[in-house]
Amino acid sequence: MIRAIVLLSGGMDSLVCAAKAVQECDELFFLHFNYGQKTEAKELECFHALSRYYQPIQAKVVDYYWLREIGGSALTDSEMKIPENSLHSKIVPSTYVPFRNATLLCAAVAWAEVISAERIYIGAVEEDSSGYPDCREIFFRAFETVIATGSKTGTRISLKTPVINLSKAEIVNLGLQLKAPFELSWSCYQSETEACGVCDSCRLRLNAFAKAGISDPIPYKTTLGV
Amino acid sequence: MIRAIVLLSGGMDSLVCAAKAVQECDELFFLHFNYGQKTEAKELECFHALSRYYQPIQAKVVDYYWLREIGGSALTDSEMKIPENSLHSKIVPSTYVPFRNATLLCAAVAWAEVISAERIYIGAVEEDSSGYPDCREIFFRAFETVIATGSKTGTRISLKTPVINLSKAEIVNLGLQLKAPFELSWSCYQSETEACGVCDSCRLRLNAFAKAGISDPIPYKTTLGV
Repeated sequence: MIRAIVLLSGGMDSLVCAAKAVQECDELFFLHFNYGQKTEAKELECFHALSRYYQPIQAKVVDYYWLREIGGSALTDSEMKIPENSLHSKIVPSTYVPFRNATLLCAAVAWAEVISAERIYIGAVEEDSSGYPDCREIFFRAFETVIATGSKTGTRISLKTPVINLSKAEIVNLGLQLKAPFELSWSCYQSETEACGVCDSCRLRLNAFAKAGISDPIPYKTTLGV
Repeated sequence: MIRAIVLLSGGMDSLVCAAKAVQECDELFFLHFNYGQKTEAKELECFHALSRYYQPIQAKVVDYYWLREIGGSALTDSEMKIPENSLHSKIVPSTYVPFRNATLLCAAVAWAEVISAERIYIGAVEEDSSGYPDCREIFFRAFETVIATGSKTGTRISLKTPVINLSKAEIVNLGLQLKAPFELSWSCYQSETEACGVCDSCRLRLNAFAKAGISDPIPYKTTLGV
């Protein structure tokens, strides 16, 4: 019996990661965070829809509003504009939320200790992503050492990053293979009714579906930017 | 100019740690967490009193109530009794809050990235403490690797644990030397008006003051258990 926690934002990558966890594990617990991100309501709606779809044992939502209070990210600061063409820049984009993945993983590890889960799934993508430092393999391996040294003796928790080395197109293909319900996911950084089609996250997603040769089932304001 | 964040619970160890940071740094930012611990109101009162005393540039309080929701600790679960005689046990005590120090450090690191602080002070004690895994040197060194790999390129943040290798009596002595206002601190795990004098935390504190040869300025229901 394998018990796992899945970090599920409601985006494409975390959805495919969840689909993989469903395939590999016996008991699933889904974990979602509200942290004042601009599309928080839409992400939460997707999380609930995906929880209804996959029926985990428990679906938990944690409020992390201190991340917005701390600021420093275009994803949480209404004064900062979401960038629309920074994919080929070499600097960390302004949508980077300071130390976000570490903070999310911490809550997952704390919960895993309590419910004796042995795996945590997170849908980080290293290569074809947006240059976030906390999406890299080296970060997750370091974090496993923190888990091993900072939790109770006997705790065995490993981090699973099944899509970390895939391109976005490969993630779409893996999702299709696992019958992931893409229509219930959301990736746009700035709109909640129709995806904008121009933010970095929309461009990556639209490109991925185009390369995979199928059309993305969610609504877009425009798909001309790709 | 050294800018530092100090994790300040309001207990004796974090107070002396803060006093050390005041001595070593130029710009201080204090950080406190409410996480549904039984003496939350008293700890918060001490945090505010210590902030008035030391006058940091900013004193931030973060709500981490998900830690109580997750449960698994006598410190946050009203159904679990605070142990009164587990100091010599070899197992991790029930007051251990799952992965707490990692979660607290994460918020500090995120804030440090935003305000460009280069140090984070935390008053963890390894030897003479209660056997918590996340109070050990090995955990903090592993966490520094997570900071280095998971934050923006160019970020330089080190973790300072000035009391980690001290005995509780040495911490009292260091505090006296640094003129730390012990009367504004609180260590008891279960009471908020008079310290109980019998929980592990009270016993450690009372023993420390006794060894240092001075009396603890805070009120106790009883000091007979030491």
